Amino acid sequence: MSLLDPQERSARGTAIKAEVTGNPAPEPQTPLEESWRDFVYAEVWSRPGLDRRARYLVALAGAAFAASERDLELYVEGALKGEALTVTELREAALHLAVYGGWSRGGLVDSAVSRVAERLGLPAAERTPIRAAPWDPQVRSEEGAQEFINVMTFPGGPPATPYLEAIRNFVFGEMWCRYDGLDQRSRRWLTLVGVCESGAETPIRTHIHAAMASGNCKPQEMQEFVLQYGIHAGWPKASVIQGVVFEMIKKIEAGLPHDA
Amino acid sequence: MSLLDPQERSARGTAIKAEVTGNPAPEPQTPLEESWRDFVYAEVWSRPGLDRRARYLVALAGAAFAASERDLELYVEGALKGEALTVTELREAALHLAVYGGWSRGGLVDSAVSRVAERLGLPAAERTPIRAAPWDPQVRSEEGAQEFINVMTFPGGPPATPYLEAIRNFVFGEMWCRYDGLDQRSRRWLTLVGVCESGAETPIRTHIHAAMASGNCKPQEMQEFVLQYGIHAGWPKASVIQGVVFEMIKKIEAGLPHDA
Amino acid sequence: MSLLDPQERSARGTAIKAEVTGNPAPEPQTPLEESWRDFVYAEVWSRPGLDRRARYLVALAGAAFAASERDLELYVEGALKGEALTVTELREAALHLAVYGGWSRGGLVDSAVSRVAERLGLPAAERTPIRAAPWDPQVRSEEGAQEFINVMTFPGGPPATPYLEAIRNFVFGEMWCRYDGLDQRSRRWLTLVGVCESGAETPIRTHIHAAMASGNCKPQEMQEFVLQYGIHAGWPKASVIQGVVFEMIKKIEAGLPHDA
Repeated sequence: MSLLDPQERSARGTAIKAEVTGNPAPEPQTPLEESWRDFVYAEVWSRPGLDRRARYLVALAGAAFAASERDLELYVEGALKGEALTVTELREAALHLAVYGGWSRGGLVDSAVSRVAERLGLPAAERTPIRAAPWDPQVRSEEGAQEFINVMTFPGGPPATPYLEAIRNFVFGEMWCRYDGLDQRSRRWLTLVGVCESGAETPIRTHIHAAMASGNCKPQEMQEFVLQYGIHAGWPKASVIQGVVFEMIKKIEAGLPHDA
Repeated sequence: MSLLDPQERSARGTAIKAEVTGNPAPEPQTPLEESWRDFVYAEVWSRPGLDRRARYLVALAGAAFAASERDLELYVEGALKGEALTVTELREAALHLAVYGGWSRGGLVDSAVSRVAERLGLPAAERTPIRAAPWDPQVRSEEGAQEFINVMTFPGGPPATPYLEAIRNFVFGEMWCRYDGLDQRSRRWLTLVGVCESGAETPIRTHIHAAMASGNCKPQEMQEFVLQYGIHAGWPKASVIQGVVFEMIKKIEAGLPHDA
Repeated sequence: MSLLDPQERSARGTAIKAEVTGNPAPEPQTPLEESWRDFVYAEVWSRPGLDRRARYLVALAGAAFAASERDLELYVEGALKGEALTVTELREAALHLAVYGGWSRGGLVDSAVSRVAERLGLPAAERTPIRAAPWDPQVRSEEGAQEFINVMTFPGGPPATPYLEAIRNFVFGEMWCRYDGLDQRSRRWLTLVGVCESGAETPIRTHIHAAMASGNCKPQEMQEFVLQYGIHAGWPKASVIQGVVFEMIKKIEAGLPHDA
């Protein structure tokens, strides 16, 4: 078997890091920086199984949960310069993450986008208002119930509490459906990081299943997601996800629902 | 059915945001900012089922877990200006959160209070020392065991390890009982966020039950808590809490303990 | 029984705080600061059951998960001044934490080390490159599998997915084995905080067992770890760990594996 060359690996990592962050990659000064180059960029971001746009969305959500303003700016700047995501899409990503990780974490992303956009001299993004016309609350509730099915691939329960009512009215009735700002597949990666970070079994199981059952994400991409997620959340959190991904891929391949 | 008007909703959100943050609410520039106004303030903080003081305590604890210094300052400033919480109470809240979320997270709150108090020119708060007089360690232990029953509504186990000993001696024997600084009901909201964020099943179940069994919080308020908590922690974490709240309300209504 | 004196306790806390942070401890101005002195330093860091180097590693990892830049700097400065940890070891700790808590959290530690080292005028640390010579990927995989056994005390499963492959190749094949930078016992404390923060049952159980089964950590030290961890993560998260520690100590004393 042919030997692998550490200098080739480092050169690959340096090149990918420069692409991902949108700036020349400086020489590592610490073991951590070296591992970013030689493992995270050279051996993870380099993998073909998941596109770079998806990896950015996982990375952004991960950096928001770690409350790392520096890393948020790195990914935002790289995504904008490399045209992996537009300002409009990043603004929608911040809103989406607010729902799946809390408004303060969404705010960390939104602030990072503002700082980078100002530094790069970008104009404010166009945005669709949440509501422009008067609405019938009954219609809003029904539209939310329908969008729940569209996203989750199964119907939601009755909106019996303030929390459950807000899921129907706002989360699905007003937020998910903003597809002119960010497509459904992209929203999946943000959602998946949010549910994985929560450690909550039911959302983890239902969303991993729905991501594949909806056609947004292939089983092999979901396996790549586990690795990319591990980079940002740490190996122990990802180990739980690896187990559920195995199980849900079997269900998807057998054409079964998540709770079969 | 009469239609609802988006401009009325936005005006309501703007007004409540100004009250909650203690400053005029600027026009939203991003979808996230718009959702703060039209959903978080107009449709959540506006709800009558939970008083604003309780919502502030949930918000402060939530922002501490998200490590958002900006949001911590917003809530601290608003709570002080609107007289929902005093500096003394906010200082106690920081200590309480240290126990339920770690000293570093308590420190994020304490630092935010210091920055805002300085900006507003407020004097240092009066405070009760943890211990002013010599104490008998046996008495401290017994007082802690009694305060545990007072708070949890059931007796704690034997202090068989360093961790369990500290629960009795410090958590209940010296911290919870500082009711001259912050009342028991207010401490509940901080505690609830801390246990919900931990994802730890037993503390979640026992504290949700104890909050109601003690009379500090009504079942309907607990349902409102789930929604307010979801705003700060994200929907997936709150989904677990919604399930436990349903279950514990049934136990409370049947007069049963948490583990019946 | 003789009475304990609050002034003696405060004096002890002040002295230990000054040692741990490497700077004179100012007079507390808030209840939180008072509790740092009179509980955290006087009654926890003062305990003989766990050495200070171990407590620093738990504290650093805990502050990284709380995203507290201020507390990270306090511990880094104190550890360096008191010669509990070298710059080389702190750099390795940042890398180790990246694996168990995500690269962004490792980055928070690495940045804090850089800021403190610059402030103290320390030279850059020597470091061993991740790979200096060409390697056979099959050998790397086998070495990783062997190091897994060395650390976990049982064999890992097949590297059937990108995530599992990276565990073998990088986590154990390239990272854990950097013992010339940081010894195995020290790596345990960082690992333990990482798995405890994840809330993931299997890593929590296997790593608590392995820490003792490997001889890196005695049962009594593990009990002290629960308390020190609680200081940084909050009582609810530590309550889960206390339960697992009880259970795993019994297994260790009976000579049983973690899943017996």
